[in-house]
Amino acid sequence: MLFLTTLLLFALSALAARYPSFGTLQTTTSSGVMNVVINNTFSSINLFDLHVQSDLANLIETLQAPDTDVRVVIFSSGNPDFFIGHIDVDYFLPGYESPLPAFDPGLPNVTFPVALLWNITQLPQATIAVIEGRTRGIGNEFLMSLDMRFATTAPSVLLAQLETSFGLNPGAGGALYLAPLIGRGRTFEYVLASKDIDAATAAEYGWINRAFPTHTALIDYVQTLAARIALFPAAGIAGTKRGINAVSRPPLDVIIRDAQDVIGVLAQTPETQAFTQKFVKATDNQSAVELELNYGEELVRLFQ
Amino acid sequence: MLFLTTLLLFALSALAARYPSFGTLQTTTSSGVMNVVINNTFSSINLFDLHVQSDLANLIETLQAPDTDVRVVIFSSGNPDFFIGHIDVDYFLPGYESPLPAFDPGLPNVTFPVALLWNITQLPQATIAVIEGRTRGIGNEFLMSLDMRFATTAPSVLLAQLETSFGLNPGAGGALYLAPLIGRGRTFEYVLASKDIDAATAAEYGWINRAFPTHTALIDYVQTLAARIALFPAAGIAGTKRGINAVSRPPLDVIIRDAQDVIGVLAQTPETQAFTQKFVKATDNQSAVELELNYGEELVRLFQ
Amino acid sequence: MLFLTTLLLFALSALAARYPSFGTLQTTTSSGVMNVVINNTFSSINLFDLHVQSDLANLIETLQAPDTDVRVVIFSSGNPDFFIGHIDVDYFLPGYESPLPAFDPGLPNVTFPVALLWNITQLPQATIAVIEGRTRGIGNEFLMSLDMRFATTAPSVLLAQLETSFGLNPGAGGALYLAPLIGRGRTFEYVLASKDIDAATAAEYGWINRAFPTHTALIDYVQTLAARIALFPAAGIAGTKRGINAVSRPPLDVIIRDAQDVIGVLAQTPETQAFTQKFVKATDNQSAVELELNYGEELVRLFQ
Repeated sequence: MLFLTTLLLFALSALAARYPSFGTLQTTTSSGVMNVVINNTFSSINLFDLHVQSDLANLIETLQAPDTDVRVVIFSSGNPDFFIGHIDVDYFLPGYESPLPAFDPGLPNVTFPVALLWNITQLPQATIAVIEGRTRGIGNEFLMSLDMRFATTAPSVLLAQLETSFGLNPGAGGALYLAPLIGRGRTFEYVLASKDIDAATAAEYGWINRAFPTHTALIDYVQTLAARIALFPAAGIAGTKRGINAVSRPPLDVIIRDAQDVIGVLAQTPETQAFTQKFVKATDNQSAVELELNYGEELVRLFQ
Repeated sequence: MLFLTTLLLFALSALAARYPSFGTLQTTTSSGVMNVVINNTFSSINLFDLHVQSDLANLIETLQAPDTDVRVVIFSSGNPDFFIGHIDVDYFLPGYESPLPAFDPGLPNVTFPVALLWNITQLPQATIAVIEGRTRGIGNEFLMSLDMRFATTAPSVLLAQLETSFGLNPGAGGALYLAPLIGRGRTFEYVLASKDIDAATAAEYGWINRAFPTHTALIDYVQTLAARIALFPAAGIAGTKRGINAVSRPPLDVIIRDAQDVIGVLAQTPETQAFTQKFVKATDNQSAVELELNYGEELVRLFQ
Repeated sequence: MLFLTTLLLFALSALAARYPSFGTLQTTTSSGVMNVVINNTFSSINLFDLHVQSDLANLIETLQAPDTDVRVVIFSSGNPDFFIGHIDVDYFLPGYESPLPAFDPGLPNVTFPVALLWNITQLPQATIAVIEGRTRGIGNEFLMSLDMRFATTAPSVLLAQLETSFGLNPGAGGALYLAPLIGRGRTFEYVLASKDIDAATAAEYGWINRAFPTHTALIDYVQTLAARIALFPAAGIAGTKRGINAVSRPPLDVIIRDAQDVIGVLAQTPETQAFTQKFVKATDNQSAVELELNYGEELVRLFQ
């Protein structure tokens, strides 16, 4: 399939950007389908840090524009090992500095990263994740904020909410989305144990839509699906999303109360502060070492 | 198994009918189990048109009678290709005429077809679909309004919400029921893409209860299940349904706000009006042509 | 694996017990994991009677103590045929006597057994069921009140909500928990028909987390899982549970209105009173006869 690259939209968005631009997202748009490649060049694990957050916030503003002709957005990764990383855990430590506001200007009382994911669920476009590589913590919460999730069965695909191992809870609502997808029982199992799930099991449980044996099969399926949806009127896509969101998304006040506010308190406990410092040191400041690649298995080392 | 046909109930219902009777539903009742065969002789695709709607509304009134001894209702089809069709799309076009009221007399602000499906969920009986043939659009929403869904794995069994391809949303709550059954991610996938799902995949995802390799296996299972439930006291059946409905059915106000009212606005857009006219012409006025038989694959032709 | 038995906690709980102690629960605690063996010596079917209820209520108080270091609780059974039995149906018959209050002192308007299960969902610990043997009626509702459910595929593992066959509904919310786990359609099927489900099918549908081919595989998996969760800070476990409960547990007012109050009325109907008397007689007062072992198949005899 041939994709014509449209750079105009990206250029316009860069001009009008509300937040600093760091170039962590490469976008190309053709026939109503935007492909977004996430490649955080500031991090070897595609960390969901201020750079990615800032660029995503700008992208969202572009996609909210009334005159956009984008009907489907596909997110993939430029990092073969990490679809997207967890949050920069410095966020929870003293001295964290960022050019981003602590709270979203449009959603009072909602922290910037939580609002970012919420705003993604509100987009009028169909949104799809093409998962190759690890996706843990807020990375998985980013997956939850997208409409659809497809992956390969490669061993590098490992999904997790790892917060409980830090003494935290998934603060951007990750467990709240997982419960209706995979059921209350399996949500408790995977989230309380901070366990990795592989793509085949994730597809069996409904965590993701489907897992494909090869990269090519994955890409073919998603691009065909996206091209089909992009044929349809934008108003129908947006109208259909509205209804599905109304019944299948945790209400924002529950996300704020049971996720965001809870994690805010837990993050300040001495146990979590100490563990986070230990984690930063053991991962060589969150780089692609064995502990990051294989956190699900390796985390027990941190408790020895 | 021997079924004694009770025609008395049907005869009484015909006498007391509130709406015009068109004979699209053949009912037989034995030992507390009513079998209803849907056969719309006004349509080659078992269209969910005013005839079927009128007859269903009358049937519901019969089943709501306090003195009924019907405890289980099984719906099957007299049309081998269509369990039940989509809505008569003339409903969305100027000049549509019907002897039915626009809104349900018992549910203010609820349109007649939406109220019909809601009233089915309120029945005190256990309700079961025996699916052989295609079931798309409001046909699938009718399936959602029943308690249980069983099918064969025959290739003619294809389920879909096809509204988004028209620039609409599933206006009688179809996507709102699907989301808790198959999960948010797969609901977006199938509904936004207006894709057909086959019976085996539908059973794997939970869209239907179970798929059987043969007609005989399907009928045996359902009749045995129905006979078993019909042994039990009616009050227990109704009481159990009340609880399950309380947690698993989208609230009526959400159906009105996020489905019915949304489709009402979308139906009036020029894009949807034009597509609907094109569809009526291309299907030879909604008859059993290839485009109706195989809409999931053939719909792309309409966008060329 | 070596477990050091800590008897101190048990001894303290016995001293401070609010309700009579009957010794139906044996507990051992090691490294933050409490193993509870349910063995109701007053009953051959591990009946969920006043003895078990009283002991569970005392156990809950122990686990709610602010200074507990228990982070995970595992429930298994000392009866090879019954993980836990249904409720003592004498509860519904005239003349039932119990030292337990009719309503929970801490939850006004909530009956003692319903409150018991609700209080279990509120525990700060991760709670796990190791299911070997039958688990029907309130036994399955006890399973629903735990966070996670694992079983062997042994034929003796049969789960059911059997209330509808009595003319009742699952009055402690069983069907309300099942609907989001296995979907609306399958909940209607299994609950309305009072059907047994085996462990393999239960795992396929999401009723339980997972089924293992052997006792050893089951125990290894659960003990490893429990030991891992017990590594993590207690506050993170409790905080994560709070969020998952917020979205995946039926609200208490729905449990009261659509389950507890409904069963209260249904239990007084002549049909249910007569069936219950018949059941008590046919089961030799709820003992391990064929009708109890194989209720799912044998119940039809009671309607002949």
